[in-house]
Amino acid sequence: MQLGVIGLGRMGQIVVDRVLDAGHDVVAFDLDAAAVATAADAGARPAEDLNDLTDRLGEGKRIWLMVPAGEAVDATLSELEPHLDAEDVVVDGGNSHFESSVRRAESTDAAYLDCGTSGGPAGAELGFSLMIGGPEWAYEAMTPVFDAIATGPAGHDRMGPSGSGHYVKMVHNGVEYALMQTYGEGFELLANGRYDLDLESVARTWNNGAVIRSWLLELCEEAFREEGNDLGDVADHVAGGSTGTWTVQEALEQEIPVPLIYQALAERFGSRADDGRFARRLANRLRYGFGRHEVQRRGE
Amino acid sequence: MQLGVIGLGRMGQIVVDRVLDAGHDVVAFDLDAAAVATAADAGARPAEDLNDLTDRLGEGKRIWLMVPAGEAVDATLSELEPHLDAEDVVVDGGNSHFESSVRRAESTDAAYLDCGTSGGPAGAELGFSLMIGGPEWAYEAMTPVFDAIATGPAGHDRMGPSGSGHYVKMVHNGVEYALMQTYGEGFELLANGRYDLDLESVARTWNNGAVIRSWLLELCEEAFREEGNDLGDVADHVAGGSTGTWTVQEALEQEIPVPLIYQALAERFGSRADDGRFARRLANRLRYGFGRHEVQRRGE
Amino acid sequence: MQLGVIGLGRMGQIVVDRVLDAGHDVVAFDLDAAAVATAADAGARPAEDLNDLTDRLGEGKRIWLMVPAGEAVDATLSELEPHLDAEDVVVDGGNSHFESSVRRAESTDAAYLDCGTSGGPAGAELGFSLMIGGPEWAYEAMTPVFDAIATGPAGHDRMGPSGSGHYVKMVHNGVEYALMQTYGEGFELLANGRYDLDLESVARTWNNGAVIRSWLLELCEEAFREEGNDLGDVADHVAGGSTGTWTVQEALEQEIPVPLIYQALAERFGSRADDGRFARRLANRLRYGFGRHEVQRRGE
Amino acid sequence: MQLGVIGLGRMGQIVVDRVLDAGHDVVAFDLDAAAVATAADAGARPAEDLNDLTDRLGEGKRIWLMVPAGEAVDATLSELEPHLDAEDVVVDGGNSHFESSVRRAESTDAAYLDCGTSGGPAGAELGFSLMIGGPEWAYEAMTPVFDAIATGPAGHDRMGPSGSGHYVKMVHNGVEYALMQTYGEGFELLANGRYDLDLESVARTWNNGAVIRSWLLELCEEAFREEGNDLGDVADHVAGGSTGTWTVQEALEQEIPVPLIYQALAERFGSRADDGRFARRLANRLRYGFGRHEVQRRGE
Repeated sequence: MQLGVIGLGRMGQIVVDRVLDAGHDVVAFDLDAAAVATAADAGARPAEDLNDLTDRLGEGKRIWLMVPAGEAVDATLSELEPHLDAEDVVVDGGNSHFESSVRRAESTDAAYLDCGTSGGPAGAELGFSLMIGGPEWAYEAMTPVFDAIATGPAGHDRMGPSGSGHYVKMVHNGVEYALMQTYGEGFELLANGRYDLDLESVARTWNNGAVIRSWLLELCEEAFREEGNDLGDVADHVAGGSTGTWTVQEALEQEIPVPLIYQALAERFGSRADDGRFARRLANRLRYGFGRHEVQRRGE
Repeated sequence: MQLGVIGLGRMGQIVVDRVLDAGHDVVAFDLDAAAVATAADAGARPAEDLNDLTDRLGEGKRIWLMVPAGEAVDATLSELEPHLDAEDVVVDGGNSHFESSVRRAESTDAAYLDCGTSGGPAGAELGFSLMIGGPEWAYEAMTPVFDAIATGPAGHDRMGPSGSGHYVKMVHNGVEYALMQTYGEGFELLANGRYDLDLESVARTWNNGAVIRSWLLELCEEAFREEGNDLGDVADHVAGGSTGTWTVQEALEQEIPVPLIYQALAERFGSRADDGRFARRLANRLRYGFGRHEVQRRGE
Repeated sequence: MQLGVIGLGRMGQIVVDRVLDAGHDVVAFDLDAAAVATAADAGARPAEDLNDLTDRLGEGKRIWLMVPAGEAVDATLSELEPHLDAEDVVVDGGNSHFESSVRRAESTDAAYLDCGTSGGPAGAELGFSLMIGGPEWAYEAMTPVFDAIATGPAGHDRMGPSGSGHYVKMVHNGVEYALMQTYGEGFELLANGRYDLDLESVARTWNNGAVIRSWLLELCEEAFREEGNDLGDVADHVAGGSTGTWTVQEALEQEIPVPLIYQALAERFGSRADDGRFARRLANRLRYGFGRHEVQRRGE
Repeated sequence: MQLGVIGLGRMGQIVVDRVLDAGHDVVAFDLDAAAVATAADAGARPAEDLNDLTDRLGEGKRIWLMVPAGEAVDATLSELEPHLDAEDVVVDGGNSHFESSVRRAESTDAAYLDCGTSGGPAGAELGFSLMIGGPEWAYEAMTPVFDAIATGPAGHDRMGPSGSGHYVKMVHNGVEYALMQTYGEGFELLANGRYDLDLESVARTWNNGAVIRSWLLELCEEAFREEGNDLGDVADHVAGGSTGTWTVQEALEQEIPVPLIYQALAERFGSRADDGRFARRLANRLRYGFGRHEVQRRGE
């Protein structure tokens, strides 16, 4: 089949490659001409603009958006809209908020699928996990493409109606934060504990048969191998956080306790408190207040 | 080579089977004659008692203990001690506290290896992950047995001196608690959230290519398949907790923050507060104290 | 001076009483005629409706809203609006979200003050703590009323521009949740710990000179005195949570970690999970998955 | 009555002063002669050593220990022991672990009272809160002294048998950590939130009538007044932690969840992680592992 791919960043190029490898045709567009050229080298037909892309796709268009979540999605959709009708299918493969996806699904004439995509650039070889929300017929129509982009048929499924794909992906990311922080706590204790341990060996041993084996633990093993046992100059600064924030916000709205996910997110915030945590500075001072304990000052 | 196995419960029988399968000889003993008979059926030579077992092993004994952590280990060791000398190797494959292992290593004439064993009965086919502490020569001497019991050579390693094997296993279990609770939080949000989701499908889709894929997530998938989407009659009651408690105790002593691991342990305690959480009952009453909010009473 | 009070529930009546006691005039209105009658008995002039109330107040109206946060505030304001001009002052003394207060301040012709009110019905005698946001002149103009409703001049202050009063009150409530839960944890440990303790005596002893003495601790003392050492039939069910939720939401937006406040809120949610916590039910089942630990079932 | 006071540090001198002020006699000793001289200036009779102190006290000795928790208590007690008999009363007013107090009570011939003392040097004027464990007759015998040292009769009580005083004090301190951290979170949000606030004014307004008013909040008010709105050069480094650690250890043993108290303690540990939190450094690197997100490096 034929797929239009809009957005040719790192993830978009992987989508192009995997769909081409599966024997499909790809029409590719990005605002960056160099990215379009890369896709063309890989075998995609380059589009000059969105008009050109939709022209080339003809009737029953199948379009995959891989543009940054937020305004770029709306801008692209609004430019596409005049060319879309009820037989077309648009997939948003990015990290959009599920409520945005519901809104977009309602406002386009095309069938709209929200597709949570997990696996990251590291998944280029293996394929991704795709969590998809939207009309059943559109999901069925896109199955050959999903088979190609995912690890295979088991790597994608329709979660439910519009928004459910990005909803499940949002929760996935919340879980991801907490898993990462959990491994971090374990290795922090090992790194500062009673024994001089080879953390790469610990991770490798665990990855072979232990209850806690996982892909993230394989990435821990890789991290110790590449950065060294003490993680070298890797900073205590964890960027990102929007999907984890969404997860906690949704959990607040649903009144579901998610203390581990929350704490993992809070650790990220804490790692970015470049001026020190005010809460702890006040606690420091309060110990003087009642106990006349010496107040440690900056620069001491 | 020849291995004496003491303790033929579920895990001990798996050890016997895997060592026999690898072509080694096993002399097996348990206080329960039926368990000895099972091992004998599998091909092990049965021992009548510990005297008999040590007699059969001759010089350079290699002994694997798979008895419950605690007094049973000390009792077994004290009965073995008269038969042990510096050329013998004793492995404790159970969940002993690392400080007990250090103490035992110091008090026996044999070389003593503390071996954290992860993978559970479910690891019978694949083999286990073995984290081993103790003298290097003893680790080397036992390598054929470790190869057999572990998933293979990559599934075991010497962590360091006495106690380090059980130390790493202790932290492994703390991490395990938090990973389980994290997946639990994610699925709790999905189960009570905005969409009617098929949680087995979610877990399966995640297990195929998602960042959070893991063996525990495969067990989640299995749980939903076997218990149903709402987990049927599975109770909100999480048993166990000793190794997680040790992890937090050690983290307190080392002054390392482990909030996610702590919280996972606290959730277990909370699930066992059969009479309600006193803290929340007091908070309920305090809301009346200042705000005259109605106090919800039991049975209402 | 003269004050119109709209909303004569428990808190509104206290406002009426305190303002009257300070020698001011009050014109009072509520949709419930009985509440108006109560205020009239106390010495207020009853208003038949909002028209009547504004008529009676004349020029330079001073109006205190003590209606439930949310739609009731908007409905009241929209009915008042035709009668308001730039010399009038309207105070919202309820628990409105600060963003609603900013919006309302911008849409009314009157000067609008958002006033966080803490102390609860229990503060009827002592007076309240008032955190006020909005135009300085309006704050000054209302000072006699604030003096009367607050504990005195020290019990109120202008926090800053519109919204800041309710903003500070929101954070106050988040702190309140965590303080309550903290005392709860301490008493839970004492109630279940190694000694048979008289918790009322503990609280009273602490309230006399201990670092942790506070008004909430006085309410703990009262709770043990009135409910008994085991809190009798007080349920493990903590209602409420909107202002605490707002606090956490704002902290997420500001990327400020508030783990204790979050956890206090999560405990409330957990206390209302009448069907058990799904997260822990899954953890229960996972222990069987890898360890073949028995799954505790409901009704066992 | 007559009281021997051993240990004349900041707290010991306050004890001497308050007991003298109440009209009792004090015999005072400290290893530091200057401290003894200070007590003598205040009106106490100086003792040359412990022999001298016990000689001066005669029969039915009443002795207050205010020495640092730990070995100093045992050393003092072992030197006192030859001079003690069943009619004597020894009070340990320091922060000893309750299990040490139980052990000491069992090993001395005197009646032994463990007395948790809260209020800190700041309580010199007001008096302290005293939580006392041990034999009832000894508690009764010491009542005049407790009345003097505490805020008055309401400021002390017998909690129960040996150890219960220090047990309740231990929990008090765990609660104290969490209250301090909670106020810290609230003020951190206010300090970094949407409005430019005068935090001293916020604290003062809250201390006058708000639900969350407390002595610790008065100390917050003082901190902002003395250090400035941004706490000046107060460092993000919270020292101390032993009694909070004991509280969490005891809660682990009792299987009681104390997530807020734990988190407050973990924040202290985190504030002292001078080399960055390893857990977060690993999370930073893992984001590169799966997502090729740039790894922030130290010094960037």
